[in-house]
Order: sequence, then C-alpha cells, then structure tokens
Amino acid sequence: MSTGFFGDIERIPYAGPDSTDPLTFRYYQPDEMVLGKRLEEHLRFAACYWHSFAWPGSDPFGGQTFERPWFGESLDDARLKADVAFEMFTALGVPYFCFHDLDMRPDGNSFAENTRNLQVMTDYLGEKMDASGVKLLWGTANLFSHRRFMSGAATNPDPDVFAYSAATVKTCMDATQKLKGENYVLWGGREGYETLLNTDLKRELDQMGRFLNMVVEYKHKIGYEGAILIEPKPQEPTKHQYDFDVATVYGFLQRFGLENEVKVNIEQGHAILAGHSFEHELALANALGIFGSIDMNRNDYQSGWDTDQFPNNVPEMALAYYQVLQGGGFASGGTNFDSKLRRQSIEADDLLIGHIGGMDCCARGLKAAAAMIEDKALSSPLEERYAGWNEETSARMLDGSMGLEGIEAHVLKNDINPQPRSGRQEKLENIVNRYV
Amino acid sequence: MSTGFFGDIERIPYAGPDSTDPLTFRYYQPDEMVLGKRLEEHLRFAACYWHSFAWPGSDPFGGQTFERPWFGESLDDARLKADVAFEMFTALGVPYFCFHDLDMRPDGNSFAENTRNLQVMTDYLGEKMDASGVKLLWGTANLFSHRRFMSGAATNPDPDVFAYSAATVKTCMDATQKLKGENYVLWGGREGYETLLNTDLKRELDQMGRFLNMVVEYKHKIGYEGAILIEPKPQEPTKHQYDFDVATVYGFLQRFGLENEVKVNIEQGHAILAGHSFEHELALANALGIFGSIDMNRNDYQSGWDTDQFPNNVPEMALAYYQVLQGGGFASGGTNFDSKLRRQSIEADDLLIGHIGGMDCCARGLKAAAAMIEDKALSSPLEERYAGWNEETSARMLDGSMGLEGIEAHVLKNDINPQPRSGRQEKLENIVNRYV
Amino acid sequence: MSTGFFGDIERIPYAGPDSTDPLTFRYYQPDEMVLGKRLEEHLRFAACYWHSFAWPGSDPFGGQTFERPWFGESLDDARLKADVAFEMFTALGVPYFCFHDLDMRPDGNSFAENTRNLQVMTDYLGEKMDASGVKLLWGTANLFSHRRFMSGAATNPDPDVFAYSAATVKTCMDATQKLKGENYVLWGGREGYETLLNTDLKRELDQMGRFLNMVVEYKHKIGYEGAILIEPKPQEPTKHQYDFDVATVYGFLQRFGLENEVKVNIEQGHAILAGHSFEHELALANALGIFGSIDMNRNDYQSGWDTDQFPNNVPEMALAYYQVLQGGGFASGGTNFDSKLRRQSIEADDLLIGHIGGMDCCARGLKAAAAMIEDKALSSPLEERYAGWNEETSARMLDGSMGLEGIEAHVLKNDINPQPRSGRQEKLENIVNRYV
Amino acid sequence: MSTGFFGDIERIPYAGPDSTDPLTFRYYQPDEMVLGKRLEEHLRFAACYWHSFAWPGSDPFGGQTFERPWFGESLDDARLKADVAFEMFTALGVPYFCFHDLDMRPDGNSFAENTRNLQVMTDYLGEKMDASGVKLLWGTANLFSHRRFMSGAATNPDPDVFAYSAATVKTCMDATQKLKGENYVLWGGREGYETLLNTDLKRELDQMGRFLNMVVEYKHKIGYEGAILIEPKPQEPTKHQYDFDVATVYGFLQRFGLENEVKVNIEQGHAILAGHSFEHELALANALGIFGSIDMNRNDYQSGWDTDQFPNNVPEMALAYYQVLQGGGFASGGTNFDSKLRRQSIEADDLLIGHIGGMDCCARGLKAAAAMIEDKALSSPLEERYAGWNEETSARMLDGSMGLEGIEAHVLKNDINPQPRSGRQEKLENIVNRYV
Repeated sequence: MSTGFFGDIERIPYAGPDSTDPLTFRYYQPDEMVLGKRLEEHLRFAACYWHSFAWPGSDPFGGQTFERPWFGESLDDARLKADVAFEMFTALGVPYFCFHDLDMRPDGNSFAENTRNLQVMTDYLGEKMDASGVKLLWGTANLFSHRRFMSGAATNPDPDVFAYSAATVKTCMDATQKLKGENYVLWGGREGYETLLNTDLKRELDQMGRFLNMVVEYKHKIGYEGAILIEPKPQEPTKHQYDFDVATVYGFLQRFGLENEVKVNIEQGHAILAGHSFEHELALANALGIFGSIDMNRNDYQSGWDTDQFPNNVPEMALAYYQVLQGGGFASGGTNFDSKLRRQSIEADDLLIGHIGGMDCCARGLKAAAAMIEDKALSSPLEERYAGWNEETSARMLDGSMGLEGIEAHVLKNDINPQPRSGRQEKLENIVNRYV
Repeated sequence: MSTGFFGDIERIPYAGPDSTDPLTFRYYQPDEMVLGKRLEEHLRFAACYWHSFAWPGSDPFGGQTFERPWFGESLDDARLKADVAFEMFTALGVPYFCFHDLDMRPDGNSFAENTRNLQVMTDYLGEKMDASGVKLLWGTANLFSHRRFMSGAATNPDPDVFAYSAATVKTCMDATQKLKGENYVLWGGREGYETLLNTDLKRELDQMGRFLNMVVEYKHKIGYEGAILIEPKPQEPTKHQYDFDVATVYGFLQRFGLENEVKVNIEQGHAILAGHSFEHELALANALGIFGSIDMNRNDYQSGWDTDQFPNNVPEMALAYYQVLQGGGFASGGTNFDSKLRRQSIEADDLLIGHIGGMDCCARGLKAAAAMIEDKALSSPLEERYAGWNEETSARMLDGSMGLEGIEAHVLKNDINPQPRSGRQEKLENIVNRYV
Repeated sequence: MSTGFFGDIERIPYAGPDSTDPLTFRYYQPDEMVLGKRLEEHLRFAACYWHSFAWPGSDPFGGQTFERPWFGESLDDARLKADVAFEMFTALGVPYFCFHDLDMRPDGNSFAENTRNLQVMTDYLGEKMDASGVKLLWGTANLFSHRRFMSGAATNPDPDVFAYSAATVKTCMDATQKLKGENYVLWGGREGYETLLNTDLKRELDQMGRFLNMVVEYKHKIGYEGAILIEPKPQEPTKHQYDFDVATVYGFLQRFGLENEVKVNIEQGHAILAGHSFEHELALANALGIFGSIDMNRNDYQSGWDTDQFPNNVPEMALAYYQVLQGGGFASGGTNFDSKLRRQSIEADDLLIGHIGGMDCCARGLKAAAAMIEDKALSSPLEERYAGWNEETSARMLDGSMGLEGIEAHVLKNDINPQPRSGRQEKLENIVNRYV
Repeated sequence: MSTGFFGDIERIPYAGPDSTDPLTFRYYQPDEMVLGKRLEEHLRFAACYWHSFAWPGSDPFGGQTFERPWFGESLDDARLKADVAFEMFTALGVPYFCFHDLDMRPDGNSFAENTRNLQVMTDYLGEKMDASGVKLLWGTANLFSHRRFMSGAATNPDPDVFAYSAATVKTCMDATQKLKGENYVLWGGREGYETLLNTDLKRELDQMGRFLNMVVEYKHKIGYEGAILIEPKPQEPTKHQYDFDVATVYGFLQRFGLENEVKVNIEQGHAILAGHSFEHELALANALGIFGSIDMNRNDYQSGWDTDQFPNNVPEMALAYYQVLQGGGFASGGTNFDSKLRRQSIEADDLLIGHIGGMDCCARGLKAAAAMIEDKALSSPLEERYAGWNEETSARMLDGSMGLEGIEAHVLKNDINPQPRSGRQEKLENIVNRYV
C-alpha cells in the first residue's frame, strides 16, 4: 500500500527522446544492450537516503525548507521514511540504494540505543529489499554530524571518540553485510583539521591508518565479500581533509599496506573542489588500480563548496563514463546519485524529476562513451601517438637495461634532436563532439 | 672588478629595526644565535639565477620589460650574467645560489653544443664560487622551456624526447656534483597533460617512475652525496601536473620504491595553487619523512597563477618556519628565493631591495618560530590535547592488540559517550600573535 | 547581577604587550591618542549578536555544538541571551553592538507576532543599553533564514514575500531608530539566484531598486539620521548575489538614483570571495564616495565559502585601516566583528578570547596605518609617481580641453616615446614592513 | 594565388552530422533558416588575427612552438601574414575578422613609424577584404604588450603614456572606420594595478573616464557609425583590472555619463575568471542595456588564468545563445573566436580544425536556443512564476504608490504569511536537456 507521498506513482516508463512528459525517461532503457551488456548492468544506479530523505533543505544561512511527514526521531518516522524511499527507488527502477546509519535509524542517547535502532531498521529495510528487489550498493557510518565528532572520528584527539567511532563502524559493517551490501564506504567528513595550531598531523594520520586496518581486518574476519571504499574530498566541512583526492588516498593506502585492500568512491564534486576534473580522478584511480565506484553529481564551477547537484552536462558525463569503461566498467561499484534537490525544489515530484534527469543524462553519456570505444575513436590516435615506445631502444630505456649514461651515449651517437609533433587536442575534441 | 651594474655596491649591512635606508638589513644578522645556531645556518638563504637574471619580465600579455646588458646567447653574455649574479649574491651575503642549465649557459643547436656550453660555464661558475665563497644549494635542468619539451620530458609520447631529457639530466647532475651542489632538484614543468584525450596517464606515470629511478641509480653510481628533490606543483604551465602536491609525490615515490631516496622542495606559491597552506605542505612532508628544502615565495591569493613574489607576510612565514624547525630544520635544504621582481620593477636596485625585504622577513619569521618553540607555546597545549592517548587502553587501540570487536565491547561495557572539548583555535591564534 | 555564564567576569584590562594572560588586552588601550583621536573613537568596535549568541555551531555537515542556556524560542530565552550578550559587550569594552531582528526576538508564527516580539525585546535592549552605555552600531532584518525567503525577499517572484519583507524592514528600521542605531544595514542573503533558468534578472533588479528606494523614502519620512548601508557579497547562500561587490553595488545605486543616499558595509571575507583584497574594496568605496562601515573578519584563503573567522593577520589589517584612515576614518560606521568562533571552540571564555585577539590586532593594525600616514611613508612616493600630471599639458588632457586629435598632434610634434619607470613595489612593501 | 600554407585548401564544405572528415562542417550551414533569419546572420562569426597569426605559442614557462613563415617585423612578413589569414577566413567562410594594430603591422620605433605601418597595412587589408568579401567586425589598439604600457595606458602615472595611448587609439579608430569596421573595441589589459601601494585608484579611474570620453567624442566628430565596446576582464595580466566584469563596467559608464554610448564585448573566459557564468554576464548586459558582442571561447574551469580555448561544450553554449537571442540577437556585434590553439597544436590544419569545431558547436548551440524560444520552453514557466506581479496591489508596490508603511498595513490587514513554491530547477534543467 502506497504512502501517497508521491500520489499514485507508478514505475517511470521509457517514452523516447521526443517525450515532453517530465515523468518519463527519454534515454534510459534498462534492457538496452550496449557493448554486450544491459544498460542497467553498466550503470548500476543507486539512489541515496541522506540527501533525498534525511536532509531538511538547510544551508549555512537558512533552515528547513522541505516539510516531510517523516521528519522526527521515532521509529515510526524512520519506517515511514523507508516506505517512501522504497516507493521512490521502485518508481525510478534504480537497482540499488545507499545509506548512512544516521539516515535510516532514530538517533539515540547512547551507543547501545543507536545499535538497537540500527538493528530494528536493518530488519525493516531487509524486508523492503526483499519485497521490492532493490539491493544495497553500500552502507556507511555517519561519523561527522553529531557534536561528539566535531574534532574528528578516527583522528580525534580523544581516544574515546576513536573507540566510539570504531564500535559504530563495526555495527554498520554488520548491517551492511546482513543486507548484502556490495560495498562498505568510509567518508571522513571530520578527518582533517581546522587549524594546524591544535593538530598533530602525523599522529592523526597514524590513527587513521590503524583505524582503516581494523576495518579491513574485521572485513576478513566476518567474511564480508564486498569492497571497502574510501571517498576522497579535499575540504569542507574541515579546512583540510586527509582524504584530499585519489592521489592522496593512494599514498595513504600504500603507507599502511592497504593498497590492495581498499578502493575509492569518487565524487564529481569532490574532484572539482580538489582542482581536478572528474575524468582525471577516474583515470588516475584506474592507473593506480584502486577504482571502485562513483558519486555522479555535478558541482557548480563558480561555487567553492559542495553543491551536490543532479548531473546534467552530457558531454562531461560521457568523458567520465569513458574512463569508467576504459577501466573495465564497474565491478562492485555503481553510479550513485549523491545529489540533492535545490532547497527551493520542495515538491514531492521534484525528487523524481531530479533523478530522472540524472539517469537520462547518464544513459546518454554512457552510450556515447561506448560508441567511442567501439569506434576506437580516441584509442587509435592514442596508440599512434605513443607508437615510438614500441621500438627496441625505447623499450630498453623503460625496462631498466639502459641508464642515464647509456642514454647519453645514444643521444650523442645519433645526434638526437627531437622535433615536436602536434598534440591534436582540437581534433580530438571535435571527435568527441561527434558522439555527444 | 665590479661590472657596475649595481653601481658601487658593497655588502648590505645590518642597521637595525629603525633603519630607513632601503639598502640595509633591519632584522637579518647572520651571526645572531637562535636555538643555539647561527641565523645564517638556520636559514641557509639561496638566490636563484632564473628569475633575477634570466627572465626578461614577460607575461602572457606582454614582452620584455627588463633591459639587461647580458641578454643574449653568447658565452660572453653568459659570463657577464654570472659576474653580475655573483655581485648580487655577495652584496646580499646569501651563502647559496641555484640554477637551471638554461639559466647560465647559452642555448645551442644540439645536445652536444649544450653540453659544451654547460661545461664552459660550470668552470666559470666554479671560479666565481671559489673567489666569493658562495656555494651551490642546488642545480637542475630546464626541461620545459624549449619547444621540444612541449609535450613533456620524461613523460613525452616520443621516446627521443625522453632520451634527450635523460641525457640532459645526466649532464646537469655532473655539473651539480662538480660544483658541490648540496641538492639536485627536478621540477617537471611539462610532466602532466593539457587534455586527457591525447594522454595515456598510466604509461606516462610509468615513464616518470623509470626516469626518476635512473636519476637515483646514477646518483649512487657517481657517489653524489647531495639529496634528490622533487618540486611539487599542481598545474601551470600544464592543466594538470603529475607532481601535484606533497601527498601526490609521496604516493608516487612509494609506488616506484623511492620514498627513502627522494625528498621534496616545497614552494609556498605551489602549495597555495594546490589548495593548501604552505605550512600544511611542510607539516605533511615532515610527517611523511620527505621534507627537503623550500622556495620561500609568496603567491597572490586572488591570482590563479604562479606569481612568485618576494615574501612579505611575517606571521605566515613564522608558521612556515615553525614547521621547518619542528622537523629539525634544514639538512641539505635551505631557503631559496624562487621569487621574481614585479615586471614593473626595472631598476637595478629593485633586485637588491626585493631580496633584502625577503631576507628580513625570513629572519623575523624564523626568530618568532624559535621563540614559540623555546616557550613550548604551541607544543604544550598540543601535548595536553592528545594526552588521552597515553593511557593503556588507548595505546592498545593503536598498537593492533584491539580490533573493532574488542573496542565495541569496551564501548558497551563502559557506556562510552564522549563529550567534546574546545579546540581552542582562537586562543592559540592569539598566542601566535604574541610572537609575530 | 551576573548570569554567571562567563563566571565572575570583569572588564578585560589592558596589560601590555608582554602579558601572557589570555583575558587581557596587549595592544588595545581605548584612551590611547592616535592622530589626535582616542583609539576607541577611531576603531568604533562593535560585537554582533548572531554569530556569538544565536548561531548554534552548525555547518552543512553537522549540527549544534554550542550548548547555550538561552537556546529556545521564548521571551525568557531572549532576555537571558540579551543579559549574557551585554555582559560580554561590557567585559570587552566594545562601545557598540549590532543585531538582526531574528537574533534577539523569538520567532513567531505571523508578522504581527514577530512585530510584537521585536517591540518587547527592543524595549529590553534599550534598558540594557542605558544601563551599560553600550550603543547600537546598526540594526538589520534577517530576510534569508526562514523558508519563506528561500527564493528571495525583495527579489522574490511572489509579491507577498516582497510585501512581507518590506513590512519587516519597516519594523526593523523603527527599532533601530528607537535604539538610536547609527546605521541601518541591508544584506540580501537571498537576493540573487540559484539558476538563471527560473530567474528574470531584469525584473528582480527592478524589484530590488524599488525596495531600496522605499527604504530611503521611509528613512527621510521618519527623520532617521543614521546611514543606510548595503553589504556586498558575491555568492553564498545563492549561486549569484546581486550585491556582488562594491563596484556592482555602486552601479546599482546609480541606476536607481541612490548613490548619494546609500553607502556600503564591507566585509573582508566577502571581498575575498569576490576575488578582491579587502583593501581593494575599501579603496574603491572611498574613490566612489560610498564607504560606510566594515565587518573586520578573516576568510580562510583556501576555503571557497564564508568562514567568518576572527581576524589575526596584522599586516593585512594595517593595509585595511590605512584605506579607512585615508578616506577620513569612520563617520557613522565602525569596526564590527562579524566573526564566529570555530564550532569546536565551545567554552564560554572562547567567546571573550576570540574578541580580545581581534581587538588587539585591530589596534596594532590601526596604529601601524596611522604611523604610515604621519610619516607620509606611502603618500610621498605616490605623489612623486603621479607628479607628471601636475604639468600644464597633462592637466589639459584631463580637463577636456584636448581631444584625441590634439593629443595626436602633441605626440607627433614632440615625438613622445615614453620610457617606463620602476613601479617600486618591493620597495614599498618593505616600507610597510617597517610599520607592522 | 595561394600561399600554400594550408596546402591546396578550398572552402570547408557542410557535410552533415555523420561526416567523419575533420575538414567538413557537420552542423554549420550558413543559409539554414532559424527564427526567420539565416544562420550566418545570427552567428556573425569572426576569426581573430592575434591568436591565430601573431601568437608564437609561448606561455610563462616556455617559448615559441609555432614556426610560421611570416614571423618577423618586416612589411613583407605582415603581408604574408595577411595573405594566410584571409586564406583561412575564406576557407572557413567566416564573414568577419578582428585585429589589434600590433597584430597586423610591423612594430616600429616611434609613434610616427607605427602610424605609417598601420596605414600601409590598412590599405593592404582593405584590398584583401574587397577581394574576399570578408568584413571587419572590430578593430582595436594593443596598449598592453609593449613595455611602455607596463604601468597602464590610459591609467598610467606618466601623462606621456596617456598621450601616446590616446594618439594610438585615434589611429586605430581611423583605420577601423576606413575598413568599415562595425565596432571599435577597448580592452584595457594594463588598466588596473599590481599593488595598491603604488596606485592612486581614484585618479586612475578619472583618467580612464576622461580617456573613454575622448574616444566617444572622436567617434561622433568623425561620424563613425560603429559601436564602441569595452571588454571586461577581472585580472590577468594585472592583479586587478578596472573593467572587472559587466556590472563594474556599467557603474563606470554611468559615473562618466557614457552608459548610452558604450556597450560591452563579453568573453566567456573572462566571465569565468570573474566568478560568473557566461550566461550571467550576457543576461546582465541585456538587463542593463549594454550588450554588444561576444568572444566565444572556453576557459578551463580548473585553471586560474585565461586559457582561451576553442569552445566545445554545446549545452553551455546553448544557454549563452539563449541569452543572446532573448536580448534580440546581435546588432553590430557578433561571435568572435578569441580562441587560440593549444601550443602543442602546431600543424597548419589544426588552425582550421579548431575553428570548424567551434563553429559547429555554435551552430548547435544557437539552434537549440532558438528551439527553446520557439517552444517557449523556458519563458512560459518563467511567466507563470512571476504571475503574481500582474495583480494590482503588486503593481502598486513597484510603481511607487505604496511605501513601507502602506505595505505594512497591507500585510497586517491581510495577515500575509507567504508559503514558498518550488523553484523547479531540476525540471527546467531537464527541459533544456531536451534541446541539447
């Protein structure tokens, strides 16, 4: 029985590119075959709990704009929230969802109470998942909103907060395993600092390394088969966050011997805030072997904070999916919408419309990327550009059999005086525009 | 015999804080003892060749503003440039200087000719060093200005450019060793990309890893005892540079097994462009054990490019030197001014005045930092803030003897419900203001 | 009788530069004479209600960290808040305070109820002002926090919101006049847009122009003698705010015939977010004749949002006060701390310490600026730099008596071929460093 | 007879969306009718001289990459450059071109010599224009590259530079008039400052106001019928440029009584650097009645300097042309490509390919914008959103017949308590995505 929040909502249909009905898909057909795989399996869409169902619409200068019947801290509120959430998941046809503990359970007064609430709601969500067929892409613990975490969770100067956080993560990993979540994510919203004046950077990094090692140890202990993912973000809420970007996380993982155990969940907006393009972070994660999953948002380019908008620029998204597909596509990961409605978008159907637009753009982007791959539109010119490295002397420079002295002799002997060749950037940009 | 470029310049004297003569030091006394060491030995000042003597004052919208009698590409020009440079080094009393090959030798038409020019000028500089007592802080190769490097040096798609670059680095390492340079630096101005569309990121990172390994192998082979330093910068001239920041370089070094072989030369302006404070990059390099040297510039906070100004904000510089001193001070590194005059500052004495101001500010900053250390002004509150970690249970959480389950039991048993404590940021900021 | 919130707080004493007691002033002596005027009269400090007493410590990723006994929406809560606020004002010895209506009255369910609450609290504040001698620097209306303002106040697409906002501003102007506030400020936190797709820019600018004209008309009608001030900010909370910066506000004022009626309240952090230095905005407001007052904060240079920190960089503050003094100092305006504690600074005395540090830095900055003015340290070189304009031909080029043709003839006749002269930036920067 | 630079180049043909030939248009058909007008007349394309033919490929860290046979300072070089330029204009079928004096004449040693060179080349260009049918969109003077302008042109502290600049502008206006240029543009690359310490802001603004008034006076005197345009840019090369953005220019024009005489030439990249979207600047210029022309570039969002790339993001460009069309389309202005090849794109045909891609994207963007206008896709929802203002009371609030008091009475009487309505941002974004 429907909650009625979305009226008498049904499954959003595919109606083709000419449809003007805002409650239809124009591009996303789950069963469309692309590169030999169904589109749904390529994209692995997930909707998130927090922005769509837990966030009240507040910003630093204003309070709640959304008036949702489930706002409150009782278990009944939590169940109503879940009911509406699954109505949305089902209507959209997203195969996955994601949550923080705090999104879906009432907030209690102690760790024990939180754990009980979590278990009650885990059971409830499990039933809804069984009934709907919606699966869990990932679970995570919110270790940043409550004031106890104001100075960090794993990196808190107070070991009691470290302990509280560790215990909370354990319960969330348990919940994720129970719900067959395919990944467990850590985003360290307060793992960083406001000022170096009160911060022992080295000590805090060591705390964080130990914490993550415990997570991996526990994963193996309980036989959890999902992936552990870290979500990089450079700053906000803190001045500096330790998981700044993909490169930083990679260095951290190596330092603590975890580079084969942990992957990254990359968000477009976080990439932008770190001074990178989204496709850069994806390409780098692929190169380093730590690509996991994506949060497919959009960040306003002129805003210096995390705007978490629904994505809508197809050419940019095509370049992102190009990197995803070049790396072999998603394994355990997927396309999560860590996107929130603008706080002025207060109608119930705005929630549907935001997701529909995002899913349609993802479908367009992925199909464009797939076509570029099929045509070798970018990979052929690339192969040609680096073709010189296939020659024997070149290979010897890379494999270690020539050193600086050997190379100097080679340069002198052959009077090597390289002439530059065009990088062909505009030509390649035009090629991309044939596909988007 | 003087060139006369600076008139009849003498050694710039220390004249005390009340001096209004622009050609005196007001704070920098080389022999002043600070924390048991001479100020000169703490600061280890170096002036650079390129900005002060090789750069013509051009910017993207305008050409040469400086008219220097040594601008030209003959060996005589190069010798005159060296004569004037050493007059400045001597007048300022900086114990060190730094150079790129291209700064100090004429640019020839082949690798062989460049090498010959380099050798001639290395000999000439060696004589001037002997005569003046000025030493070489570091040497480096310019692998970014000539059009042959437009698509990268070590990361070029063309193996001939890789070879040319490797051979050039060998000659520059040889020159640095001959001149007893205390460090050899690599800044990869073109090691990065303009667009991912024409770039094989993974391949280029591998090329760069191999290149750096060759540098380290050659260092050991020739018994060079200086440090190898990488200088991080996030972008400019390229859209994305592979040596983005300290964290990125650290991850790269680990990946190629070089984290104990190579350190970083950190520039204030590059930190800013990467979205970090200077002190962050210094603190992180200390925490990761890869701190080497600094370029003590200033970047305009409202400009999105590398402004390379002479430093002048003492409170900020005090925080930077605080990190340097906390890490034990400079070993092989020093304080290099990678600073250039504004292009409107076309008088000869502007060169002196820019350096004098920078050196005075460094002296003030370092002395303030030293006083904070002597008073434990910041370290005492820090110790207290993390004191909880000295307790036994806390230590066991960190040393691996407790895991998530053990910690959960501990939280439940003791009903741990941590109360936040003030971070005291404003109090600490006020303390710093007692010293600057 | 004290509320006890600050313990048994007394007036913070001046104890000199060597004091290590965090609850003393080290530089600020209200009665010190500077340029013939008491320091207190130069600086005209004000503390604000909102950040220190109304803000709960929340940010986009976390909730309340401060636990204040007056948090609540009853009149008793509001009175307790006022009691504590005036204890702080008195302890600090700030001669002024500032408020939004929403800061100091309970939020009611209708305009009428809000007006009644405002009147009750205005009376209460009036009594406290009389008792303490603390005066009102400015009052303002909060037209941005409540959800009714989510799409703007004066620029709302709904004329009812325009009406509600206008009526609210009237009540706040009345309250400000009653309390003898020396200025009335408008900050249009929601006057802007999230997306141009739903925005009629021209229409909204016209609404805003009419709104401001009504404010000015009403000011004259009631004989209010304070100044009307607009506070520019480029963005946040909206994507684009119409009062972007000083130059934008000036164009807007001229367009609606208000450039002689309205001035600007300039905040350091807003200047930074607009891509300007603080001193730029001050200098420009002086040049345009619309300088009013300042919010003396600090914005983190690496954060893309409004961090509203207590100021602590004396060299930067000296340059700001230099502009203030060059423009003749404050008339009706003053130095307001629109600064908030970091959300981790949860102790009561953090409130005092934050303000003490800011006030001390202001005192240092203003005294340095005054000394530069007394010495003509910057104005003499400036006069010399532009001296050529004192010649007759130069004057004729400016006064309109020569046009392009006349000037061309002059250039040809005299074969004018100007040689550049050094801008002396480094020299001037060194001069500033003699004073800070 | 062809120079052969582009081989045996012919007019680039339209070949339809499926064409894979890089030297064909896929979308741009000049004669296609859109909103009752030929596409060519809508877009009014212009190619620029400077980036394509005068810029050597240098950047702050590297020198020339392009090797063009016309690089040099003889009149023969200048004629060859013109020959090749017109070959490109003709091949592309752009109806217009633009130039700075310095782009197309050799640089001489005096004002008189420059004027003579300008006249020779103006004659030569005139012949080429007659022969080819290519027209001049705008001319301008380069008052920023030569060292004499290092401290400004109109705003220079030295009145001789002011005079030299004024005389130069006169000659360029003469040349533009002679070539029937449809606009005359001023971009003040050095009109701004590097530091306020050596700058009298007010005086420099007055100089600039007088300068612009002389330009307008001369325009009327010689009966020049084109438009005078200012091109805003916030910074680079200077730290702060006086023509920061559209709003700033508008305030400046009003201050000097020129708001009906001068319009703006808006560049996408400059908008971005000022913290605005391109469509914001266009919408604002329309609202203020000063829209003139556009430079249709693209700026890299992660680079803090002017990257001047060829545009390639169709969805963004559609929003820009939507604003252009909403304002009635171009009058004297047009779509200029102030775009440069990446410095690695050193092949001759890269020049063609860059422009072809840009022109195709413009055609796609404009057609999408036109379709949205025909369908009232965005204007209908907008009209509805503001519909409340059509009511009588609303109108009276705007027309001045109600003031704050009247509105307060109205609010009280009707107990106005406005309820927010959804801003529908996501819905509108999805609508746009139906067209791009």
